[in-house]
Amino acid sequence: MNQDYIQPDAWSIIEEGFEPGRVKSSESLFSLGNGAMGQRANFEEGYSGPTFQGSYIAGVYYPDKTRVGWWKNGYPEYFAKVLNAPNWIGIKVTINGEILDLNTCKEIRDFKRELNMKEGWYQRSFVALLPNDIEVEVVSTRFLHLDKDELGCINYAVTPLNQSAEVSFTPYLDGGITNEDSNWDDKFWDVSEVASEENQAFIHSRTMKTDFHVCTYMEAQLFQNGRHLQQTPETKTTDRAVRHTYTTTVEEGETATLFKYAGYAVSLNHTPSTLKSAAKSVLREATDIGFDTLLQQQKEAWSKIWEMADITIDGDVKAQQGIRFNIFQLNQTYLGKDARLNIGPKGFTGEKYGGSTYWDTEAYCLPFYMATKNDEVARNLLVYRYNHLEKAIENAEKLGFTNGAALYPMVTMNGEESHNEWEITFEEIHRNAAIAFAIYNYTRYTGDTSYVPEKGLEVLIAIARFWHQRANFSTAKNKYVILGVTGPNEYENNINNNWYTNYCAKWCIEYATEMLEGVEQHHTKDYERITSKANLSKTEVSDWNKVASNLHFPYSEELGVYLQQDGFLDKELVPVSQLDEAQRPINQKWSWDRILRSAYIKQADVLQGFYFFEDHFSEEALQKHFDFYEPLTVHESSLSPCVHSIQAAKLGRMEQAYEFYLRTSRLDLDDYNKEVDEGCHITSMAGTWMSIVEGFAGMRVRDGKLHFSPQIPKKWKEYSFKINFRGTIVTVKVGQEHHCFCVKGKKELEINVNGEAMKLSPNTEVTI
Amino acid sequence: MNQDYIQPDAWSIIEEGFEPGRVKSSESLFSLGNGAMGQRANFEEGYSGPTFQGSYIAGVYYPDKTRVGWWKNGYPEYFAKVLNAPNWIGIKVTINGEILDLNTCKEIRDFKRELNMKEGWYQRSFVALLPNDIEVEVVSTRFLHLDKDELGCINYAVTPLNQSAEVSFTPYLDGGITNEDSNWDDKFWDVSEVASEENQAFIHSRTMKTDFHVCTYMEAQLFQNGRHLQQTPETKTTDRAVRHTYTTTVEEGETATLFKYAGYAVSLNHTPSTLKSAAKSVLREATDIGFDTLLQQQKEAWSKIWEMADITIDGDVKAQQGIRFNIFQLNQTYLGKDARLNIGPKGFTGEKYGGSTYWDTEAYCLPFYMATKNDEVARNLLVYRYNHLEKAIENAEKLGFTNGAALYPMVTMNGEESHNEWEITFEEIHRNAAIAFAIYNYTRYTGDTSYVPEKGLEVLIAIARFWHQRANFSTAKNKYVILGVTGPNEYENNINNNWYTNYCAKWCIEYATEMLEGVEQHHTKDYERITSKANLSKTEVSDWNKVASNLHFPYSEELGVYLQQDGFLDKELVPVSQLDEAQRPINQKWSWDRILRSAYIKQADVLQGFYFFEDHFSEEALQKHFDFYEPLTVHESSLSPCVHSIQAAKLGRMEQAYEFYLRTSRLDLDDYNKEVDEGCHITSMAGTWMSIVEGFAGMRVRDGKLHFSPQIPKKWKEYSFKINFRGTIVTVKVGQEHHCFCVKGKKELEINVNGEAMKLSPNTEVTI
Repeated sequence: MNQDYIQPDAWSIIEEGFEPGRVKSSESLFSLGNGAMGQRANFEEGYSGPTFQGSYIAGVYYPDKTRVGWWKNGYPEYFAKVLNAPNWIGIKVTINGEILDLNTCKEIRDFKRELNMKEGWYQRSFVALLPNDIEVEVVSTRFLHLDKDELGCINYAVTPLNQSAEVSFTPYLDGGITNEDSNWDDKFWDVSEVASEENQAFIHSRTMKTDFHVCTYMEAQLFQNGRHLQQTPETKTTDRAVRHTYTTTVEEGETATLFKYAGYAVSLNHTPSTLKSAAKSVLREATDIGFDTLLQQQKEAWSKIWEMADITIDGDVKAQQGIRFNIFQLNQTYLGKDARLNIGPKGFTGEKYGGSTYWDTEAYCLPFYMATKNDEVARNLLVYRYNHLEKAIENAEKLGFTNGAALYPMVTMNGEESHNEWEITFEEIHRNAAIAFAIYNYTRYTGDTSYVPEKGLEVLIAIARFWHQRANFSTAKNKYVILGVTGPNEYENNINNNWYTNYCAKWCIEYATEMLEGVEQHHTKDYERITSKANLSKTEVSDWNKVASNLHFPYSEELGVYLQQDGFLDKELVPVSQLDEAQRPINQKWSWDRILRSAYIKQADVLQGFYFFEDHFSEEALQKHFDFYEPLTVHESSLSPCVHSIQAAKLGRMEQAYEFYLRTSRLDLDDYNKEVDEGCHITSMAGTWMSIVEGFAGMRVRDGKLHFSPQIPKKWKEYSFKINFRGTIVTVKVGQEHHCFCVKGKKELEINVNGEAMKLSPNTEVTI
Repeated sequence: MNQDYIQPDAWSIIEEGFEPGRVKSSESLFSLGNGAMGQRANFEEGYSGPTFQGSYIAGVYYPDKTRVGWWKNGYPEYFAKVLNAPNWIGIKVTINGEILDLNTCKEIRDFKRELNMKEGWYQRSFVALLPNDIEVEVVSTRFLHLDKDELGCINYAVTPLNQSAEVSFTPYLDGGITNEDSNWDDKFWDVSEVASEENQAFIHSRTMKTDFHVCTYMEAQLFQNGRHLQQTPETKTTDRAVRHTYTTTVEEGETATLFKYAGYAVSLNHTPSTLKSAAKSVLREATDIGFDTLLQQQKEAWSKIWEMADITIDGDVKAQQGIRFNIFQLNQTYLGKDARLNIGPKGFTGEKYGGSTYWDTEAYCLPFYMATKNDEVARNLLVYRYNHLEKAIENAEKLGFTNGAALYPMVTMNGEESHNEWEITFEEIHRNAAIAFAIYNYTRYTGDTSYVPEKGLEVLIAIARFWHQRANFSTAKNKYVILGVTGPNEYENNINNNWYTNYCAKWCIEYATEMLEGVEQHHTKDYERITSKANLSKTEVSDWNKVASNLHFPYSEELGVYLQQDGFLDKELVPVSQLDEAQRPINQKWSWDRILRSAYIKQADVLQGFYFFEDHFSEEALQKHFDFYEPLTVHESSLSPCVHSIQAAKLGRMEQAYEFYLRTSRLDLDDYNKEVDEGCHITSMAGTWMSIVEGFAGMRVRDGKLHFSPQIPKKWKEYSFKINFRGTIVTVKVGQEHHCFCVKGKKELEINVNGEAMKLSPNTEVTI
């Protein structure tokens, strides 16, 4: 564990005491988001010490020029970047003309941050002794409104403690922002209008190249001791910023409060010419409703989310806090309202990975959203890829594929590939399978058989075509082979016959074939529409299956295990346990070639296949493969421990499963990887959820029914969660001795626990 | 063939007619160099059309920040760049106030460039009708003095043809230059002094970071109709440039001539504070001697070079021109006077490849310098690497190697690695073997047994240690393996057991062991000095040999050929002849992953091993491997055709050998690769020389004797060359029916022709 300053609390993330060295980490941890916008926990009043300023708008990105050493043919032109958007939170504060800046105060005490996850707000409070010896108490509360998702609300209260003082608030908007993570110090934003209208202000700006238009807006209200002071602010505009200054004299012990309503109206949702009026209409509503009622709405909205998504853990407050933090962040990042959006690996908490979409979404995040939201949300994640199908076909064409074969991008904002390491972009092709698997997984879980004939089949055909073309026949092996790939274990590059990739390829072709047959039988019109659009013949499908049925899978007879790739056994198979601690993490200590030729595995690879396709393998086979591969695994991807936790649990190794769980659930809160200042690991948080639900509780869907095989870590008294299964809400409580199951609503549900079928009657708890 | 504008001529490169689209290509082709400095054929008077300005100083480089996508551990901090140095050639010319600029003239006729290779000068002449309707004839002649290698001389003559005119010459120096090939638009030079003293001027500048100090200097003299006009120039200095203007009125048909003596004094050869006085002393000498005598010296110096290095080809003027161009450029690039210098792939003709040293030097260039210079020159190439041994050990340490193992850099200026693609830098480790092989090759050729005990053995030990550590034992194969490499065929990355690399590794260890034994026996003191310095025990040597004697070599029993790497036969083995022409060159048409998984070979790989170690393999084996690999080879490296030409000749396939020869000998003159505007392929020019001497003439050194097996392309009447073999000059003439051999001097020499021994008496031609 690398940090330990977050106070244990079941529902809140709490930091006490001001430490400048923690500012950037806390800015990540206390981030707010509402699916449409996000805000790092930067100080409203500004801070002259080290800070990482970040305001983000979902779906607004910039095609930053790709930075490479030597250009390789086929490289994408750009690396998509989530953009730091104009600053809407800023409120400069002066006390008798002295600027409030925690970096220059004589003394700071009672500093506290609280991220209230239950209610969805963030509060920071402190007492500061300014250079001019005035002591003030500050309490600042803010939230991003979950329903009115263009709106952020701030309540900023200042109380002079040792004398009366003139308090000035200068709420402002600033379009002159830069990106922390830019390649070329390019300017990303053009500001076309800076407007001030009494208490309101607006900045109209647009992103260069991508031409997203954004109206950043604000309106402020000054209160003193609860009374609204109708003040016309002193206004200052520049070509990129606008400031309103409100000034009042406050007696010792009295409080001046600034309410600031602000946010973004974006051309994704409005025509550019109506952005300002959209902003005004949000402001009108916000000022009419008022901060307190808006906050009440926020609490109610989050209460609804928790009603479905909460996991309780009794007997371990840190574990409780950890899992809730994960669930909270996932919900801050993506709410499934908009099929144009997706889940960036850092969500709205930082800029790394460009805020783009990775295979993380399909492989790790989908189960969480399926189980804790309604089907529409999960379906929107599938539709996101369906809408990108054409671009995925274009992407494959750039790499020489033909006939409608699709290669989905490794990293994308709009469907185009926007990553530029050949060993990833060109070779980590297994991501294509995750997209097909998500269709399977969604259908299996929801029972919604309409998605495949409506949309999914087109994706499955294009993906099957890719695998068919990507394999080649090896005369030497008398088998089809897939050469030159990178598997999920990115500590291997350009390998041949990665078992996981090959297995996925075979499965994709077979699943596409099966779905084709099903759609032909049950949705004839869709079948005709799709096969005609795709120009697909039965001969072609039979050609695909020649590859699928005769694909090479590296296997060791001697060890009885599938090999991660051809030649894997030529490596020095020294377990991680024998590796000197000083050499770890190897991705920081070893040169890349040394990592590549070592046997060390970054994250589940063969075992990822055993996770996706677990019913294809016996438990004995799982055990053999787990015992062969896990000891060689360094888990240097945040996506690694969850899959291993699930599989250790399946093997009944609860202690090991719990160990893996711990590595994932408080990864960011305890900053295991010493990088939380860059942002939180959002997508791996879904893996944490899976560790409990699929790992400890053993939840699976088989034959349209929920199965459980509940276990519980020794340290916990009880844990519980809810599952939205095909419209029925199932509550599961797992204790050390008994487990309870219950369904809400009107329908009964048949489930299976530890291999035994069980009927749950509505609203009746069954204990076993 | 992609261009055809160079006039065939045995001794000169000639271009006639002015074509703006050819300017950049001709700037490369007509480049001048003298081993210490180089100059692209830029126009003295300037040119406002597309041009690539380049003045280079040998050994003066800049550590440009490495540009990469995602940083990988162990990457070098910088990519060394040869620097565009301050402009010394510039002479602005105005005619009645109108600027002479070939891009703005109303008409240009009789434009001609000539690079006289025999005498080492470059002349450009033309008649131009200026916008002000004055017609002038210009003849500009320049050369870089071969012996006084800090000096360049220009004779710039202007003759008004249709009226008298006021002609102004403004010779200048300009330190405000940029690099064509820079990553970050950084400034590379700081100018500290700009001085003008009567007819002389000086700019003192230094490179940032590397702190090379350079005094760029000039002195001009104005002549009219052969009479020196003692004029004090009008002077203008800025913070980075200095201009002197000389003006005279010239009658129609009379000629005004400016002589400009200029160049660089560099802190590699002088202390920074004495640069200016060094420059003054060069100027004093130059003006004392005068242009005509200096040019005479130049002719004599080149005559000496040609005396040894010339190859004549009778019956094919284009082939004659091609081979002389290659020999000329090699001598312009490197003369072996200074062991700190080396041979950049583009010499002084461009900036690509950063002017750095690659394995090209040892693998392709050494034989040329051994045979056409004295031993000292070749030895300096070895000493270059000896001097970098410590840095090579540091480089290996960065990659996790220990105990004095050395990995020489793939690309370097000063011994540090300065390339940044992991698949090259970290994996293309066979370069280490080329450095050991050069020691072997030098010793074999020169008979100089002193280099190994004096210096070479230390290098051999460090290289053997590297190979020993780089291999690992594969339990599965019960053999040592070398995983994760890139062979000479860079169209494969991160492969296992590249046959060439493994064979080289084995040979390096065995050769180091043999040399250790020899030095122990014959140079005991050196043995003790070196083994003690290296802390080398006999046990360690025996450990090396365990690897060497049990290394895995991929082999196909069925085909009877060694495989380029493990798994090579899994590829689709479709010969290049079946590849659609529209798909070629594949490095421009195919994405990188497609190239990697194809069987297509960029340059000799297994066959490179057969070239280096030809006595280890039968001719039958060579034939088998040639027939297997050559049809899969796309020869997209300029270093590929020469090795294939040599081997085709060895197999008696002269037509094929000649075809390969044609691809290499006029690669730049005819611009096969459509890239000569970036500079010429200097290092591959040495391969062209090898194609004739080792290929057609079959020259080898065996048992301390020269062997020949002469053949001649059908199209040629005769070709001849000279060889400096251990101090004896051998002339070889090969005709369609007879061949002549002759030695100069006083010693007789035993050679071997077509397997038969033959004694050559001094100065007596033997015809067979």
